Amino acid sequence: MRYSQLFGKTTKSVPADADSINAKLLTQGGFIQKEISGVYNYLPLGLRVLTKIQNIIREEMDKIGGQEILMPTMTQEESWVTTGRHTMDVLFHLKGQGGTNLVLNPTHEEVVTPLAQKYIFSYRDLPFYVYQIQNKFRNEARAKSGLLRGREFNMKDLYSFHTDEEDLNRYYEIVKQAYHAIYNRLGIGDITVLTFASGGSFSQYSHEFQTLCDNGEDTIYLCEKCKLAINKEIIDVQKTCPECGSDNLKTVKAIEVGNIFKLRNKYSKAFNFYYSDKNGQEKIVEMGCYGLGPSRTMGAIVECRHDDKGIVWPTSIAPYQIHLIGLDLHDEKIKSQSEKLYQTLQEKNIEVLYDDRLDVTAGTKFADADLIGIPQRLVISKRSLENGGVESKKRNEEKSEILSLNSLDKLI
Amino acid sequence: MRYSQLFGKTTKSVPADADSINAKLLTQGGFIQKEISGVYNYLPLGLRVLTKIQNIIREEMDKIGGQEILMPTMTQEESWVTTGRHTMDVLFHLKGQGGTNLVLNPTHEEVVTPLAQKYIFSYRDLPFYVYQIQNKFRNEARAKSGLLRGREFNMKDLYSFHTDEEDLNRYYEIVKQAYHAIYNRLGIGDITVLTFASGGSFSQYSHEFQTLCDNGEDTIYLCEKCKLAINKEIIDVQKTCPECGSDNLKTVKAIEVGNIFKLRNKYSKAFNFYYSDKNGQEKIVEMGCYGLGPSRTMGAIVECRHDDKGIVWPTSIAPYQIHLIGLDLHDEKIKSQSEKLYQTLQEKNIEVLYDDRLDVTAGTKFADADLIGIPQRLVISKRSLENGGVESKKRNEEKSEILSLNSLDKLI
Repeated sequence: MRYSQLFGKTTKSVPADADSINAKLLTQGGFIQKEISGVYNYLPLGLRVLTKIQNIIREEMDKIGGQEILMPTMTQEESWVTTGRHTMDVLFHLKGQGGTNLVLNPTHEEVVTPLAQKYIFSYRDLPFYVYQIQNKFRNEARAKSGLLRGREFNMKDLYSFHTDEEDLNRYYEIVKQAYHAIYNRLGIGDITVLTFASGGSFSQYSHEFQTLCDNGEDTIYLCEKCKLAINKEIIDVQKTCPECGSDNLKTVKAIEVGNIFKLRNKYSKAFNFYYSDKNGQEKIVEMGCYGLGPSRTMGAIVECRHDDKGIVWPTSIAPYQIHLIGLDLHDEKIKSQSEKLYQTLQEKNIEVLYDDRLDVTAGTKFADADLIGIPQRLVISKRSLENGGVESKKRNEEKSEILSLNSLDKLI
Repeated sequence: MRYSQLFGKTTKSVPADADSINAKLLTQGGFIQKEISGVYNYLPLGLRVLTKIQNIIREEMDKIGGQEILMPTMTQEESWVTTGRHTMDVLFHLKGQGGTNLVLNPTHEEVVTPLAQKYIFSYRDLPFYVYQIQNKFRNEARAKSGLLRGREFNMKDLYSFHTDEEDLNRYYEIVKQAYHAIYNRLGIGDITVLTFASGGSFSQYSHEFQTLCDNGEDTIYLCEKCKLAINKEIIDVQKTCPECGSDNLKTVKAIEVGNIFKLRNKYSKAFNFYYSDKNGQEKIVEMGCYGLGPSRTMGAIVECRHDDKGIVWPTSIAPYQIHLIGLDLHDEKIKSQSEKLYQTLQEKNIEVLYDDRLDVTAGTKFADADLIGIPQRLVISKRSLENGGVESKKRNEEKSEILSLNSLDKLI
């Protein structure tokens, strides 16, 4: 992609209420643009990152037998009355013509449970796992922290359905491993910890995945012995690690990037969702739900992967793999070498953002590249050509080296 | 995919209000399930079709320089007041906490115009083209016709921005060709015609793409001379073909599957969207908008590509390429051959739906395959193996042939 033609360039201005690093850097880098409080437009660079995050999650969900579906944004309020959750203050309410009361779903238990009920009758139909990647809505009193707490946001939600608790427990552990695989691929595996959280009225514990980050909004307690963490709710009650009993806990800041729940029969009971077992007996369906928000995770990654110059994207989700900067492009010879390099990289199917702007200083181009945060920078200029090729530098390293134009294979 | 494990099997029951062939066949085939009137869940088969349609559209938009973005579902009502469209009766209104008046966007001119305005200042920034694939909302008094007229539906909307009318006209013709390419790839190119429609207050004509279909909801007038069509609005006024003046017009039924508009300066004026030209003069931006709904098109394709047994998907958007039916699977030898064939097809990266059910008759399996409408059926059974291999039959042909298990390359 030629940067000269890219919609959504870097900008110095940020919304007055940009209260977080991710809102500031993603806006300045040309990834997102605020529509209203807690609601964002994704510009081409931002949508590329979001899509890569979604695809990594999708692949890992498929690997554990998840079947992708797409449930609607909107449903009847009645379904929420059935579960007693219609009084949640984050529900957006709206009126259909004819007077129907509708809501925008902040989560989809109220949709997926009656949907599954239409197709699942017997133990032969269980277990099964469905997920979706869909927008969700929360009417937050105060949306804040950029992509971390939006009113409209993107969510992957997986739901599992089982004949009994034992099978739910079995799959719950499989999902835990899939989540670790996702965070590894997203480049935050080393700083993301499984964290005990309250199980609500239906289970002893649920689990969060918390990414360690100095400017995180949550405080968690890292168990030095078993390397798990405990959230504040749990610590307030029991003071020690639920896994190993240790009280050697370290207080750290973190951002929640996923949570998984054993719902047990909370929703199947509300909707009378039973199946017939091998002996023809009616039994209640056991359920689990597993959330991981691509947009929130994108915000969290920026919070923990940046420096004072801008974002430092992990390679797996960077909008492009290479940021090619052409300098001295008024010189026709240099321009032609630069264009040829751009073409070569494209022919090798390397994702490349090419700063081909004529009316911009070298300093601005370097600052923009640092802000945008693509992992590998290549500079082609009068000087680099005199030195034997292109200057190569990684976003997260200081040192650069000259690569000859014929040795670009070293890059990839 | 094993059909025994697929979420969303075929069903005989359809919603009482299924008033169209697409609602009936897509529900019975296990592609969609109604949530509320005009709002559907996409089951795994349905989401596969929808995604394939979206990807074909995406590729063709990228080819004509479209840059993909993602605008939000929700915005402030104020933007709609700016254009005077806040009184549209299909707008869903909702209240944000704190009392903000919000709407769910039925189209995105009110979002994309002020968004573009943040990045476009000079003639150097023009022309540019952005599109998104996003859910849209219309508070229809009576949602009907399955995926054809929903309250929540999926839309690809492209917007173009130009320095002058001439450049808008140039790009408008490019989009026309891209739309034809899309319909060709979707398997309805031969029955989809460019149709003159009213240009509204801002242009003489706009254009619809209408797919000829006996049970279409629109009446259009096909010009026998120039092979274009004219919609009812235009015919009521001028009685002849706007292209060639002919009055040799044939009345046919059709379904609208796309529309393109020259918006000119209708929205740029409302938002004061000016650019500075080469001489530093302020000039108004010219705009075009181009809609093509993946979900509506999915419904339209079913309306025109089915028979009395079920859907007949075009290969490009079929949920799977091959529907493999295993019969006599209680016989271990046949089962093992059948499983081996399933594995071989998967190893060749062929998308295959494998009906491995043990407790279902051959008749039911054949009926389900016809209903689901995958283009190529393979049957492996005691009889087929005795006859030398697998029975191969295309969904849209009557004749079948026996292929030896070693000659499957013929299929692909």
